[in-house]
Parts: sequence; structure tokens; C-alpha cells
Amino acid sequence: MTRFRLKLEYDGGAFQGWQLQSNAPSVQQALEVAVEDVTGESIRVHGAGRTDAGVHALGQVAHLDTDTKLAPEALRKALNAVLPQGVSVLDIAEVDPRFHARHDAIGKLYRYRILNRSEPSPLRSAQTWHIRRELDLESMRRAALLLIGDHDFSAFRGTPGGSPQEETRRTLRKLDIQRRDDEVVVETEGRSFLRYMVRNIVGTLVEVGQGRRPVESVAELLESRDRGRAGPTAPAWGLCLDSVQYPGDASGPGPA
Amino acid sequence: MTRFRLKLEYDGGAFQGWQLQSNAPSVQQALEVAVEDVTGESIRVHGAGRTDAGVHALGQVAHLDTDTKLAPEALRKALNAVLPQGVSVLDIAEVDPRFHARHDAIGKLYRYRILNRSEPSPLRSAQTWHIRRELDLESMRRAALLLIGDHDFSAFRGTPGGSPQEETRRTLRKLDIQRRDDEVVVETEGRSFLRYMVRNIVGTLVEVGQGRRPVESVAELLESRDRGRAGPTAPAWGLCLDSVQYPGDASGPGPA
Repeated sequence: MTRFRLKLEYDGGAFQGWQLQSNAPSVQQALEVAVEDVTGESIRVHGAGRTDAGVHALGQVAHLDTDTKLAPEALRKALNAVLPQGVSVLDIAEVDPRFHARHDAIGKLYRYRILNRSEPSPLRSAQTWHIRRELDLESMRRAALLLIGDHDFSAFRGTPGGSPQEETRRTLRKLDIQRRDDEVVVETEGRSFLRYMVRNIVGTLVEVGQGRRPVESVAELLESRDRGRAGPTAPAWGLCLDSVQYPGDASGPGPA
Repeated sequence: MTRFRLKLEYDGGAFQGWQLQSNAPSVQQALEVAVEDVTGESIRVHGAGRTDAGVHALGQVAHLDTDTKLAPEALRKALNAVLPQGVSVLDIAEVDPRFHARHDAIGKLYRYRILNRSEPSPLRSAQTWHIRRELDLESMRRAALLLIGDHDFSAFRGTPGGSPQEETRRTLRKLDIQRRDDEVVVETEGRSFLRYMVRNIVGTLVEVGQGRRPVESVAELLESRDRGRAGPTAPAWGLCLDSVQYPGDASGPGPA
């Protein structure tokens, strides 16, 4: 038995999220079907984390165990040959059998793309959230500073929220806002995130950037732990899981 | 009556090309329907040139005449509010009533994107042609030099070809090949092009880059005027009409 680590790109619009579902196509299901096609084995593929319906990935990580005699590169090609067009194995490597995609992850980098111009963009509509009025980045950056660090992010959790027992403390190591041509790009990094947390933060920051929410109120919002007071959940299609970090990785952001 | 010049972005995958058709959605039709929705007028929209089914545009230009009292910016917003998601009016300006989008165009810049890596890219599959093996750009550039300039491009016309009377001389002012990360981007500029000419040139250059066609043979191919000897037509979805140039335009490539 060999454990392989996979790096995956996928178009969130082609699936109802990462996780296996009984009645809708998921990335996990597509991979497990492809592995069975190639190896004849019915095995579980473990992702570094779930991505919600519509969320894209350029560097999701997963692991799987197989008895195949295929070399990694041959396995990668064979999987891509049978996978649907919406998902692709970018990289595959043999790893220590103790490696676990989810447990061992020390960081995830998400990127949220906002198209910030008057006119819609047909060629980018599937990967950007369109906000017509020019956003005030200075205010958004000041609000972001209030969120960086170790906090209880209950105010930014999904509605109706997870189980009451869920640990809601998280550490945001990075929350960066840049203008790139006609886009505003929000990058955030942390060990893990609550469900919808990134999209709820982006929705709230956009309200700040539109002048509809004072910068200072974001500190109160965070303290309130009240999901009802945060901004709207930004649409899924603007969000992309850029990469997942592990100890010993040569490059990429590490712990702050 | 006022004549307006429009700059358009569209997703070629959402239409069967620019030109009005009886039984399939076209960009021209979408615009004419939108203009009628907004102004109540049934008018013709004239494009700088046809783009074929599947070909994208970031800067197609068109003109139209209307009696609307709307200011340009209000007209632009009104059109975008009723246009389908696949097309967007980026810019609109009042122009001299003698301006003609097609007759006055002095240059068109096309960009062809090739994804040149082993793994497919789900997030770019609708806008790139996937060529797995690394292309030899040096050979492609030497072949491109043989095509730049004033030639009879019959060998690169569409099959079965236009009417026998069609003028097949064209001037390629630019045919540039660059590597940008994992993509190979071909940019070409000229006053006008034969139908399928850009895609047939790209298909031929790719054969050169794959070592399947000697560089020197491209000169013989051009001289032969024999469409049967050129490479395959590169897929439509890799091609994008970047911009159209007119005399007096402030920026953008002009005549060489």
C-alpha cells in the first residue's frame, strides 16, 4: 500500500462542493470514481478541508492509499484522463503513510476576487464578484487589521451556524487587500476557518469599502459574536482555495 | 439621430459568433434586442468584423444610430442591465456620423492563449487550448518571421475557403509569441484577416513548436497557397479579439 498526496485544481461551478453527497456531483466523488476506474480499488480520498458549493481551488490537497503499481506520474496522467473537465490533478507524490491531508495542514491560503468597475466582465463572471462602485481600500484595510490575529469568529460563522459545541476561535495570520487592475483581491491565510467565514468577512469588508459600515464597528461586531450583525455572505464563485501548507514545505506561506 | 461607438467584451462560448443567424444566438442579435428593449427602436448594430462561433472578445467595436435622448453613460448602463451575462458594453461614446466600425478600422489585435503544461486547467479550459508537450518557442518565432508582412494567405484561409474572387492578400504587422507562466501567448495584428486565418496560423505554428513541421516548410506552405497543406485550425475558445484600432486613437498599436 502506498500513500499519495495530490494537488488539485477545480472549477467550483462544476460541483456541489468538495464533500461527497448522495444526490449531487462533488469533487471527492469525481476523484473516488476516477481512482476506481484506474486502479479497480474502491477507496476513500481525504481532502485537506471541505470547500463549499461553487468555491474554486487552485491548490486543494488530498491523500489516498492504493495498491497500484503505477508510478506517481503515470497515476496522475491516468486520473486526469478519466476525470471530468472540472477537476484536474496538478501534482502527485508518494508520501509517508502517516501523512494526513487534513490533520497535518498548518495553513490555508484563500483568495477572493472582486471585479470593481462599472461594467460587468463576461469572461470573468464565473470567478469574480462584481461590485460596481469603487471600494475604499484604505477603510477595508483598517477594518482588516481589527480581524487579524486570534479571535472568536462566531460573528462570521455560517448561518444557522455549526453545532453549539464547535470551537469558534481561529487565528487569521493574514488578511490582505490589494487592487490589481480593475480587481480588488482579498487574500487570507490561517490554519483553518469556520464554514463561510472567509465569505462573511469579505461581505463585511465590502460594506466597509462601500461606506455602509464604519471601520470601528467591525471590532464591536467581532466582540458581539452575533452572526446576525455581520455583512452578507459574499458569493461562492469569487472564492478560490489557493494552497494548503504543510510542515517542511519548501515554499509558500508558513505560520506567522 | 446620434451615432454611438461601442466597445464590447463577450464570452464566445455563450454565442454562435458575432453575426446574426436565423437559428442560433449571436452577439449582434443580443445587442439589437437590447437596443430595442432600451430605446424602442429596431436598428442595425454594425461590428468592426465578425468573430466566429466560440471566439471571445475583450475589445470588439461596433456602431449604431439612435434617436434616444439618453446620455452615453446612461445608455451603456441601460444596455448592460438588459443584455445577457455573456456580453457587456465596456464603453460607449458619441462619434461623428461618418464613423464606421468596419470601414474605418485600421488594425485588429488578436490574442491566442495556449496552456502549455502537462495537466489540464479546469479554471482556464474555456479560454485556452491545452497542448501538453512543451513547445519550442524559438522554432515558432522563426516560423512566425516568415509570415509577417504582406502575403497571399490563401494557405491559411478557411476550408472550403471563401469565394474564388476573394482578395487573399493580407498584411501581418505583428506575430509575436511569448511564454507567460504556463501559457504560450500568440499575438497578431493586422488591418484585417481572412476567415480562420489566425487559428490556422496558430495550428501551423504549434506543429512547428512540436517539431512535426520544419521551420523552413512554412515559407513553402505560404507560397503554395494550398490550404490542404497547413496545420489544423486551432480551437475557437483559445482566441480573443483584444482590440480594434482607428485613426486618431490615443493608444494601442497602430500601423507599423
